[in-house]
Amino acid sequence: MAIRFGVLGAGRIGQVHAKAISSVDGAVLTAIADPIAAAALAAQTAFGGDIRTIDEIANSDDIDAVVICTPTDTHADLIDQFARAGKAVFCEKPIDLNVNRVRECLKTVEETGATLMVGFQRRFDPDFQALHAAIDAGKIGDVEMVTLTSRDPSAPPVSYIERSGGIFRDMTIHDFDVARWMLGEEIETVFAVGSNLVDPAIGKAGDFDSANVILTTATGKQCTITNSRRATYGYDQRIEVHGSKGSVSVENHRTSRIEIANADGYTRPPLLDFFMSRYLTAYAAEIAAFVTAVQTKTTPATTGHDGLMALVLAEAALQSTKTGRAVKVAEILG
Amino acid sequence: MAIRFGVLGAGRIGQVHAKAISSVDGAVLTAIADPIAAAALAAQTAFGGDIRTIDEIANSDDIDAVVICTPTDTHADLIDQFARAGKAVFCEKPIDLNVNRVRECLKTVEETGATLMVGFQRRFDPDFQALHAAIDAGKIGDVEMVTLTSRDPSAPPVSYIERSGGIFRDMTIHDFDVARWMLGEEIETVFAVGSNLVDPAIGKAGDFDSANVILTTATGKQCTITNSRRATYGYDQRIEVHGSKGSVSVENHRTSRIEIANADGYTRPPLLDFFMSRYLTAYAAEIAAFVTAVQTKTTPATTGHDGLMALVLAEAALQSTKTGRAVKVAEILG
Amino acid sequence: MAIRFGVLGAGRIGQVHAKAISSVDGAVLTAIADPIAAAALAAQTAFGGDIRTIDEIANSDDIDAVVICTPTDTHADLIDQFARAGKAVFCEKPIDLNVNRVRECLKTVEETGATLMVGFQRRFDPDFQALHAAIDAGKIGDVEMVTLTSRDPSAPPVSYIERSGGIFRDMTIHDFDVARWMLGEEIETVFAVGSNLVDPAIGKAGDFDSANVILTTATGKQCTITNSRRATYGYDQRIEVHGSKGSVSVENHRTSRIEIANADGYTRPPLLDFFMSRYLTAYAAEIAAFVTAVQTKTTPATTGHDGLMALVLAEAALQSTKTGRAVKVAEILG
Amino acid sequence: MAIRFGVLGAGRIGQVHAKAISSVDGAVLTAIADPIAAAALAAQTAFGGDIRTIDEIANSDDIDAVVICTPTDTHADLIDQFARAGKAVFCEKPIDLNVNRVRECLKTVEETGATLMVGFQRRFDPDFQALHAAIDAGKIGDVEMVTLTSRDPSAPPVSYIERSGGIFRDMTIHDFDVARWMLGEEIETVFAVGSNLVDPAIGKAGDFDSANVILTTATGKQCTITNSRRATYGYDQRIEVHGSKGSVSVENHRTSRIEIANADGYTRPPLLDFFMSRYLTAYAAEIAAFVTAVQTKTTPATTGHDGLMALVLAEAALQSTKTGRAVKVAEILG
Repeated sequence: MAIRFGVLGAGRIGQVHAKAISSVDGAVLTAIADPIAAAALAAQTAFGGDIRTIDEIANSDDIDAVVICTPTDTHADLIDQFARAGKAVFCEKPIDLNVNRVRECLKTVEETGATLMVGFQRRFDPDFQALHAAIDAGKIGDVEMVTLTSRDPSAPPVSYIERSGGIFRDMTIHDFDVARWMLGEEIETVFAVGSNLVDPAIGKAGDFDSANVILTTATGKQCTITNSRRATYGYDQRIEVHGSKGSVSVENHRTSRIEIANADGYTRPPLLDFFMSRYLTAYAAEIAAFVTAVQTKTTPATTGHDGLMALVLAEAALQSTKTGRAVKVAEILG
Repeated sequence: MAIRFGVLGAGRIGQVHAKAISSVDGAVLTAIADPIAAAALAAQTAFGGDIRTIDEIANSDDIDAVVICTPTDTHADLIDQFARAGKAVFCEKPIDLNVNRVRECLKTVEETGATLMVGFQRRFDPDFQALHAAIDAGKIGDVEMVTLTSRDPSAPPVSYIERSGGIFRDMTIHDFDVARWMLGEEIETVFAVGSNLVDPAIGKAGDFDSANVILTTATGKQCTITNSRRATYGYDQRIEVHGSKGSVSVENHRTSRIEIANADGYTRPPLLDFFMSRYLTAYAAEIAAFVTAVQTKTTPATTGHDGLMALVLAEAALQSTKTGRAVKVAEILG
Repeated sequence: MAIRFGVLGAGRIGQVHAKAISSVDGAVLTAIADPIAAAALAAQTAFGGDIRTIDEIANSDDIDAVVICTPTDTHADLIDQFARAGKAVFCEKPIDLNVNRVRECLKTVEETGATLMVGFQRRFDPDFQALHAAIDAGKIGDVEMVTLTSRDPSAPPVSYIERSGGIFRDMTIHDFDVARWMLGEEIETVFAVGSNLVDPAIGKAGDFDSANVILTTATGKQCTITNSRRATYGYDQRIEVHGSKGSVSVENHRTSRIEIANADGYTRPPLLDFFMSRYLTAYAAEIAAFVTAVQTKTTPATTGHDGLMALVLAEAALQSTKTGRAVKVAEILG
Repeated sequence: MAIRFGVLGAGRIGQVHAKAISSVDGAVLTAIADPIAAAALAAQTAFGGDIRTIDEIANSDDIDAVVICTPTDTHADLIDQFARAGKAVFCEKPIDLNVNRVRECLKTVEETGATLMVGFQRRFDPDFQALHAAIDAGKIGDVEMVTLTSRDPSAPPVSYIERSGGIFRDMTIHDFDVARWMLGEEIETVFAVGSNLVDPAIGKAGDFDSANVILTTATGKQCTITNSRRATYGYDQRIEVHGSKGSVSVENHRTSRIEIANADGYTRPPLLDFFMSRYLTAYAAEIAAFVTAVQTKTTPATTGHDGLMALVLAEAALQSTKTGRAVKVAEILG
């Protein structure tokens, strides 16, 4: 039976998910909520469904699941509300910027028995999945070192930065999740450095725009994460996993596959411009996975626990930049 | 207003087009016809629409356009029938295996004023379009030499070969069209060689499975086409255009973008397996272009004339293999 | 015992070989001859050895072998002279522009029992050797189709063209030799087209600057050769061999291995500028192979017969452009 | 005037330098010293020169310069001895494992006015130089982040590890030097993690075989270094520099440039096997640069100060792994 969706929030990421729902078998877009009427209407025009308020959606009998795409500070309350309303919940990362609030929220989810999936779309990217499948197939032996590179094409406006929770909770959080996925064991320590090299306004807002992180696990596996709010050549998304028998990596996506050769050399086009184009397929696959989890009453691939742990790593990274030392995950988890 | 489609023939390529119609804005799949009831039903189940006979579709008021995906020897008659019935016609290549029959058919199309588009989907591939756009933008100066490589992953069954019209009319015909598109002027001479290296049964059926062709134009531009019914590494589709200021080429599509490095070296996955996956996007873009042509009453990007000229080149190639000399296109056109 | 060399002709290619001799174990540069005193002196300054006349070198007891780098029309006479003088002879291609003169010359070589090696340096390129070794190792199964691309960075002066014997005898001759090497069997038919697209002066001189050739063998193997006197991106030298189990190809050599990524895309440097840099290693390996052949009294890797056959293919290509038909090698060999 | 060399130590790296001296214009190998007679003899046989003791070389009038390739714990004493003997000194890294001993040694060098060059051959690699030249040419704007990857093909024997000073002083020291070169400013803080994943015997010997380092500068530039004593696919040597206008990276060197395509995918050969092959050209260029510095009495490209600073960074990295915090370079320099 098709899962009937309500999409909460019709901004950029809300539209990405509405589009994904439209393209996935077994998913139907039933309702859209957004306090900005024009935004709701634009999404409705593009993808269909009714326009309702959030409370109306919570009380609707014809809604099986919601996708939470509202501002971060509303996520945890909405998860609570919809878990109690008996809806399956897909929530964009992060659940909350505060670790304790996330834990409370996960307790509510557990008590209600609701399905909760957290939006880490990179796990559903076909190339990253092929890379992970190669690891699972033993192609590189035991994982030893993971290298993640994520660079945004350009810095967001400071107004976005101010509400983002900072680079580690907003941007690196995706890499933290990928690191956990690729390492195949929990992270024990986090060391991070951050600088302000791209936009001085970001520094004034108290955030970094350039960061490097080293993660270690109990068995000595290591992971580095390189982040920048600048990549003139497009949205840079790379993974390299090194193991006892070999390495596996994944190539970036360009805007086309042509190459021009002339006196200046051989030139291939820049990368896809940002996450909406780069992860187009992943967003659809993510919703499809959520639909399957709801239909089969199984645990989603990216759970509330995954959401919590990525946030904990972000918190540890932030503390590391303040103290200049490697922070143990256990310190944050308490 | 949405264009209402009838799809004639629910085989492999019919399903490709039914799927494309489903995914294109402004296109609606209204009816499907296939003498094999199970095939029609399967297509209906997957993509919707009514099941009707071909004549019913021709007489339907709720059909604006048809996509002809029936066996080759029915193409010309169906074009005639539907052009006279006032429908816009999209026909898979070739229009017919016989040059004169194609000409008669095009005369009927002209008389009826029907829109006719011939299915050369490669012109709608985003990468090939990017390559052609680079030429148009002057990136390589004047085109001098074109190199086309098309290799099928494996040979089709002999039963297919026998009705195919031979490798030049069945397989190279796409390259002939691409050559005309890339050279930007008509071909004057055709030289071709063919061998039987892949499957002796193909040779017994009087066809080649390996071929090379050289085309020349009046101004001295040259094009080579390499074809094989074998490519163990997947569906090989390459274009390289060399001009006075530089060259432009296009990379193949792999099944994923990972690369594994170990003691055996660096290995990337094989190519996509065949045209349905490689040209998935192109088929949808092709139907979208047809829809636009019908809606705006403009000439489609690939006309009946394009269909004729590609067939003429195939005919010339075949004669060249028989005579061992370069055959002038004018000899075939008469 | 070291082989003592005389180098005949101290022009561009003479210097390449003098340098190669200097770098090869078991080779000593003993004498240089050039009618232009300044050229001989420059070579001597750079690489050592005495300056002598050609006749002096022929009569020298301290010369074991000569490298003939004089103008083409002197090659055959010099081979005759030095074979009779009991010297081992390494001769730059072609032996002569006339097939019958080559045959006479080879007869002299046979009668004298002299060692004769013809300069097809591409056979000694480490990458091309790795490619050929992969074929020998069965990596691609039976060879079916060979694709050769050779483009010079720019056209030579017309004065050079006029004495060159034309593009097939001067430039394609290397590809003809590589084709024979890669196909592993003799060529049966040759079809060629030529155009004048790069420099009108070349056309006025009666030569082509752009050419495509198709070769076939008795068992149906096929080879295409693409040549141009223009490649704005450097010296383009590619081989692709397609077999029953797979394909093997070889990448071009760039001026460095860096890649710059910015808003214009990803750019790698142009290719090495011409044969002296691209085949630097090959020239040394070629002389080393000659030294070994002389020392061990074994047949060199590239014989006078190879020189003859490459010339015959060039002659066939030229006749093909005049007649518009595939020319049988047997027609030329008589 | 040619610089007459004495090579101290005829082991693996001594032979590399003896070979480089043989191939460089303006350099002559005059004498070799090694306590193991067979090693000295082998080097003499391969590259020429007399066999002398170290003291004999120090007292020889026909020696202008020495290359110190003896065990690390002799480096500083030999630099002292030969600086006082009025010879120019090229010393393999590190000068000593102890920072204070290095400083004393540099004081002696300063007092004697001797030329001292420290062997960081990567600065002379043509590709790395092309990369650095691109930075200097402004191609990527201001440097922001540097990513260095160095993986050895396999772990050395524990006997080597025990005398090596540990991974940071033995292996990472090259990356520290490259980091300083690429960042263009001094490093301020060092954070490092190390694990024992490749060979337990290395762990028992108190060393790491897998390490990651983050460096920062006063202006907030960042650099990560990834090291492993394992790379099944060959000697992995990569640099990526990210700047305000773009990025520049350098490709690894493979054993050949062929690519084989078959049902398993597209496979290119493994990388060159180790530093002797990968940096063959760099070693010669390094000696050539030393020769020029000696001849022109100018400061070499890699000075004693560079040797000191790389060692200081190694010391800081080691302390960081013990304390779990970022160590300031100033703490080590005192």
